[in-house]
Amino acid sequence: MSSQNRPMHDRWSFSQIVGALPPSVPFVPPEALERRMGRALRLRVGANESNFGASPRARAAMREAADGIHWYGDPEGYALREALAQKHGVHSSEIALGSGIDDLLGLFVRLFINPGDPVVTSLGAYPTFNYHVEGYGGLLHTVPYRDDCEDLQALDEIARRKEPKLVYVANPDNPMGTWHHREALAALAANLPERSVLLLDEAYADFAPEEALLNPDVNGARVVHLRTFSKAHGMAGARIGYAIAPRALVEGLDKIRNHFGINRVALAGALASLGDVSYIDSVVADVELGKEEYARLAQSLGTRTVPSATNFVALDVGSGTRARALVGALLERGVFVRMPSVAPLDRCIRITVGPAPERALLADEVRTAWQEV
Amino acid sequence: MSSQNRPMHDRWSFSQIVGALPPSVPFVPPEALERRMGRALRLRVGANESNFGASPRARAAMREAADGIHWYGDPEGYALREALAQKHGVHSSEIALGSGIDDLLGLFVRLFINPGDPVVTSLGAYPTFNYHVEGYGGLLHTVPYRDDCEDLQALDEIARRKEPKLVYVANPDNPMGTWHHREALAALAANLPERSVLLLDEAYADFAPEEALLNPDVNGARVVHLRTFSKAHGMAGARIGYAIAPRALVEGLDKIRNHFGINRVALAGALASLGDVSYIDSVVADVELGKEEYARLAQSLGTRTVPSATNFVALDVGSGTRARALVGALLERGVFVRMPSVAPLDRCIRITVGPAPERALLADEVRTAWQEV
Repeated sequence: MSSQNRPMHDRWSFSQIVGALPPSVPFVPPEALERRMGRALRLRVGANESNFGASPRARAAMREAADGIHWYGDPEGYALREALAQKHGVHSSEIALGSGIDDLLGLFVRLFINPGDPVVTSLGAYPTFNYHVEGYGGLLHTVPYRDDCEDLQALDEIARRKEPKLVYVANPDNPMGTWHHREALAALAANLPERSVLLLDEAYADFAPEEALLNPDVNGARVVHLRTFSKAHGMAGARIGYAIAPRALVEGLDKIRNHFGINRVALAGALASLGDVSYIDSVVADVELGKEEYARLAQSLGTRTVPSATNFVALDVGSGTRARALVGALLERGVFVRMPSVAPLDRCIRITVGPAPERALLADEVRTAWQEV
Repeated sequence: MSSQNRPMHDRWSFSQIVGALPPSVPFVPPEALERRMGRALRLRVGANESNFGASPRARAAMREAADGIHWYGDPEGYALREALAQKHGVHSSEIALGSGIDDLLGLFVRLFINPGDPVVTSLGAYPTFNYHVEGYGGLLHTVPYRDDCEDLQALDEIARRKEPKLVYVANPDNPMGTWHHREALAALAANLPERSVLLLDEAYADFAPEEALLNPDVNGARVVHLRTFSKAHGMAGARIGYAIAPRALVEGLDKIRNHFGINRVALAGALASLGDVSYIDSVVADVELGKEEYARLAQSLGTRTVPSATNFVALDVGSGTRARALVGALLERGVFVRMPSVAPLDRCIRITVGPAPERALLADEVRTAWQEV
């Protein structure tokens, strides 16, 4: 289409909501960085992808499923939802599948939010949630982190003031890796205004201590738990996650979700991965070792990592300026990391914890780059 | 969650649009039929999945990609979009990827439709499009088919009267398999009101004659072409499709789509499948033979199949009552087919054309069931 004949942007009648949105991309992907640099990255530790890979059983199931890819996946996700219900001690009607938590965040926002409805989250929390809220015309109200943690008390206060439809909390948190005790979360949920729902993003739950995890079997609580196979299960590219939620909300999603939207390979892989508990345990144990190594690395550099209940660490670089310089210096050396977007969190860089050989290489690269900045 | 303590449905503050939606599932999947019957289907020929399977090259690429599934797919889909741009003679900025045409239909509806905005389609056309229009509060205006074809003249007339944001046409058509000449489509597009966009669903384009396919290189035309890897490419379970559209629309989708939403296995498979032209040609050629066989089968039963430019045939059963009975009798025999939803299209059943052994079995089953109804 030649540009002189192409209709101009302002001739298109976009919807009011979309027409008002700025151009927006949540994250620059590592592939785009590689294309800009003209060379491949040496270490991809910026998106908390599990470089341990998926479980061997899950990979075998996915290879097999590739041969049956000419069939749509089961839109009811029956087998996987039954397995998840058993794992979590809920009924399968309280499980909703999605193409990752990103997909589910968009669906829950769409389920609840009219244009102009208030939504509460922390300043500097997961940007894709904000992307969806803005994408449906919701109004974000934020409170800052306190001591590198989401500030549950401030969230409670703003929620009682704004009466938002949705309150978003990640526990463990991203991008800082910190976590709250489940009793603190239960208190937040119990205190919420009548019409508020707590969207509890538990993407990193597999790495968290037991006492961080709010039991989904909370009678009457307005809590949606969001889980994913992207992190500990090593299946980020498969795009599969789930919500544990009151049945009325699962039925609500059924009115708007893409019923045939989940990849058949992902369904097969997730079911197999759920059955490979010892593999997931071994990944979690190795990540624990890695976090200790990175804490010692930080100490040797005269700084610290923020205690983390996830598969990443936030390494304190001292200031936003220095952290940005370090991210740049690492990228120059072929190492992809990301960093939080707002002060004071942005004094840190966020490093995914992978297998031991990768950790050794990463430590060398950080030491070298640290001298440069 | 015990039911007596679970909040009641009406205590949830769903958005106005979603709150007004009825419970709705576009299709009952074959897996649900199997669960109801308590036994496996013998023939799955109801959803136009390609039982020829994906190309061997695509399957190999997908098996390999399963080992790298711990990484998110490239959200820019760079390699695939470049390959698609080359195939269609457009720029890669005019290609948008989605998790199948279903996903793209939802995104285009969201891009354009405010609650109450008019949308035009044919009565009895693809229900998932209607599902999305209703899901965003759009108002559907329909015109009946004429002679088993979408009635372009009636669509043109209603479009000029209602001035819809979107006009949806499938060419070749689903569920009837008929098609229009590209010049008729070009005339429809040229005639549309200033603010209307033609959503041209070309899911079955690979099976269609050259003259059915509107060239996407139409300067200034307000046409979006929707293509998929679900049909001729045999990758329905991978969930990958694309739009060829003016750049402003691709940029519009970038403001609302799930940027990391496409499965990494699907991206790899689609790219490999694009490169295996001879395999796709062989599938299309075999489907042609199959359609001729089914035409002869129909003749032997004293009826006909509607001439089809897709990978399915509409077999004329004479009446909606008889067609429904035949669908039921076939299901009893373990054969899954579907049928159109509205008269007079519902005098037909819709049968996917698969490989020769499957066609022989299907012919036997239809002959037997035909006697029963």
